[in-house]
Amino acid sequence: MARSTSGESVLERVVRILEAFTPSDRALTVGEVSRRAGLPAATGSRMVAEMVAHGLLTRDADRRVRVGTRLWELASRASPTLSLRELAMPVLEELHALVGHHAQLGVLDGEQVLFVERLSAEQAVINYTRIAARLPLHASSSGLVLLAHAPPELQERVLAGPLARFTPSTPTDPGELRRRLATIRRDGFVVCCGYLHPEATGIAVPVRDEHRQVAAAVSVIVPNDELARDRVAPLAAAARRIEQRLAAH
Amino acid sequence: MARSTSGESVLERVVRILEAFTPSDRALTVGEVSRRAGLPAATGSRMVAEMVAHGLLTRDADRRVRVGTRLWELASRASPTLSLRELAMPVLEELHALVGHHAQLGVLDGEQVLFVERLSAEQAVINYTRIAARLPLHASSSGLVLLAHAPPELQERVLAGPLARFTPSTPTDPGELRRRLATIRRDGFVVCCGYLHPEATGIAVPVRDEHRQVAAAVSVIVPNDELARDRVAPLAAAARRIEQRLAAH
Repeated sequence: MARSTSGESVLERVVRILEAFTPSDRALTVGEVSRRAGLPAATGSRMVAEMVAHGLLTRDADRRVRVGTRLWELASRASPTLSLRELAMPVLEELHALVGHHAQLGVLDGEQVLFVERLSAEQAVINYTRIAARLPLHASSSGLVLLAHAPPELQERVLAGPLARFTPSTPTDPGELRRRLATIRRDGFVVCCGYLHPEATGIAVPVRDEHRQVAAAVSVIVPNDELARDRVAPLAAAARRIEQRLAAH
Repeated sequence: MARSTSGESVLERVVRILEAFTPSDRALTVGEVSRRAGLPAATGSRMVAEMVAHGLLTRDADRRVRVGTRLWELASRASPTLSLRELAMPVLEELHALVGHHAQLGVLDGEQVLFVERLSAEQAVINYTRIAARLPLHASSSGLVLLAHAPPELQERVLAGPLARFTPSTPTDPGELRRRLATIRRDGFVVCCGYLHPEATGIAVPVRDEHRQVAAAVSVIVPNDELARDRVAPLAAAARRIEQRLAAH
């Protein structure tokens, strides 16, 4: 592929430009894009212009730049992620109507859980997840379920740390986490009270594909109270229904 | 931006490679990708390899290629489209629970309606929409609502045709369509019986942003029977609630 004099490919620059945009910085000036992507101003400006011409980025009336609808369309219409999400959606809606608060679907990507769907009630308990957001594997209920069924090499790499602490309850001891993963494999669910926020409990169960491999985690985030454990049964039932839909697909 | 000897930019080729994947062709061999993108086999193979290295594409165990989770993440996490969709989602869920069948959210993109969300009941009436799919403006309820509030130049370009016919009921007469658009602006909704399929009725209403510009259309697809019109009132109420959420954001 064509390379600049610095030996960097055009594609690397395109990816770095896209990485400049985040949920909290959805609109940036061309200068901000160039700076965040580590590109000279002229290069950044030229690349943004071409990306706008192809609909990968769009320019606002105030000249600020955003991620383009065309990019979202190209990334979504044939995405395996979206296909899983579409199959799971009717079940996730019913789960959400039953449990309230947040219901979400996450997949393992690299060493994190990537959330491909989140349904939230308007007055729900606090939650750090967004669609297309990530959380560390050791500190979230979805992440622990995915880690429990991940290849041993990945488990060891994650347990070797660093293991960030978000609250006094976040598990950060590798030995304790290793025992926890075994318990999750035995029980088929995990309840995480206050790992990311003192007032929120995450509950997650695995979703298996037709080869019985864990393909995703379905989870709910509820208030950290004595009712939390009552949500395990409806969550497990939802996971079974998503599995039936995956198998029938 | 770097160009090949044919004068074509790398970005053009990346876009054409992404365009090779569709909802019905989610996994392709490298040869199929190159052919669809109009690239020499060696070029296609080299570009696919680099896109895989950056996570924009992924390779299956059987060596077939798919759109990558990383691309979906980059396109989604800061997308204005997804932001609108997230704000609308709690309302869309309630509308869907009330009306059943399909509830969807569409935006104007180019000369088509692009659907950014669709919620479907498991036993719903037939519907051609998918998430990230498009429909022509003149033949769908969402499209007609968006066209009715589009700039006059776009209206004239669409009415100048071609205007595809899907069923004997699809409106394809420019004069009739022009009168129809005026009626939609006056009434604030449209009911389309059998325009895309004889058994399905689409009903759509506009969603306005804080500047009172039409930003999207919310619609339901229901069976083509005498109850269809009863859905106009809950649909209009849903649009008002989405507008309140947009304004509060």
